[in-house]
Amino acid sequence: MWQLYQFPLCPFSRKLRLLMGEKNIAYELVREHPWEGRDEFWHLNPAGRTPVLHDAGRGVSLSDSQAICEFLEETVERNPMINGSALQRAEIRRLVALFDENLYADVSGPLLHERMKKRLVLRQPPDSRVLREAMKNAHAHLDYIDWLVDTRQWLAGPTLGLADLACAAQLSVADYLGGIDWKGHEQTRHWYSVMKSRPSFRPLLSEKMEGLPPPPHYALVDA
Amino acid sequence: MWQLYQFPLCPFSRKLRLLMGEKNIAYELVREHPWEGRDEFWHLNPAGRTPVLHDAGRGVSLSDSQAICEFLEETVERNPMINGSALQRAEIRRLVALFDENLYADVSGPLLHERMKKRLVLRQPPDSRVLREAMKNAHAHLDYIDWLVDTRQWLAGPTLGLADLACAAQLSVADYLGGIDWKGHEQTRHWYSVMKSRPSFRPLLSEKMEGLPPPPHYALVDA
Repeated sequence: MWQLYQFPLCPFSRKLRLLMGEKNIAYELVREHPWEGRDEFWHLNPAGRTPVLHDAGRGVSLSDSQAICEFLEETVERNPMINGSALQRAEIRRLVALFDENLYADVSGPLLHERMKKRLVLRQPPDSRVLREAMKNAHAHLDYIDWLVDTRQWLAGPTLGLADLACAAQLSVADYLGGIDWKGHEQTRHWYSVMKSRPSFRPLLSEKMEGLPPPPHYALVDA
Repeated sequence: MWQLYQFPLCPFSRKLRLLMGEKNIAYELVREHPWEGRDEFWHLNPAGRTPVLHDAGRGVSLSDSQAICEFLEETVERNPMINGSALQRAEIRRLVALFDENLYADVSGPLLHERMKKRLVLRQPPDSRVLREAMKNAHAHLDYIDWLVDTRQWLAGPTLGLADLACAAQLSVADYLGGIDWKGHEQTRHWYSVMKSRPSFRPLLSEKMEGLPPPPHYALVDA
């Protein structure tokens, strides 16, 4: 059985959990706070990041969320999430990188630092200037996602794919941390409520980070 | 014919150029400085980053360096660089991400900001504290790469692969900017001189960023 090292608000672990949910791959959760720098965890992943997917029985440890997703796509054929022609697959991967890197760097990463890490680890107040900037950046990203929703059936093309999962993972963390103002983004809001209603998403919505409650609308599918 | 939008010291464009060199894929260079924020370039890639691979004739634009590398691996079979079993491919991709993300964030990214962008664009002196930190970080990364070289034929396993190209790309930019002290890293130095002697690497070594000369040892294969 796979063990997934993660913490509830890690957006990259969420992307992987959504993929494993969509592909019906069984796993158990192992709680890991990468900022604690446990030696055993650095031994599993020298990059010191969640998620890590570990199978002690087979002696296999996989890390880097995208490398793990590609591995699962190659080894578990059902419900492919990097699918279509080579050009369509390139478009899925382009958007996954846009969400994993830019949306994270501009929005969910700063929110995690200011609202989670400062509160639970550093015991400092958040920097309101950084929060305002992240929420402003969120609007620019949502504008682009609105455009994707307007012009395609799913974010990267005609079928649900890893781009949808990566985007929903980052937005769900930002939404949990109160960083998303959905007003004026009806297209993305509708797409996101469809994502939230998927069975793969349900386990994530019911989990909480201790000492850090989400806003009331967070887990509501039609909010 | 592919057009590759890049600038000489972009490490992600270098990774892609090494891959295209190894696979004998023809392309022409288009100079792009992403920090200038040209509208036409943002239209090609909403992430605003190099490299972008464009084929005007086919109306195809690809962006995100890893998405492009995966596309070329899928469409050009010769000289595969993400090869082997699914586990070996996961290891290649794990290391590519380690070099593209961590080595860049810790070493080549700060060097590019302090020594290239501040000099050529911002007209500011470099911050010596940031430079010292980047060079200290470089030693920690080189220690890990030394270990990889000690335990494997190539960085990710028995054959030359994209992990070698990604690592060489980041190190070559850091070395150009005088940020690598090779003393004490004989294993990596030897591996890197083998990489530098490959035909795919030669065009990169002869290119210069105007107003920013590399140190004398930079282009020497046996240095």
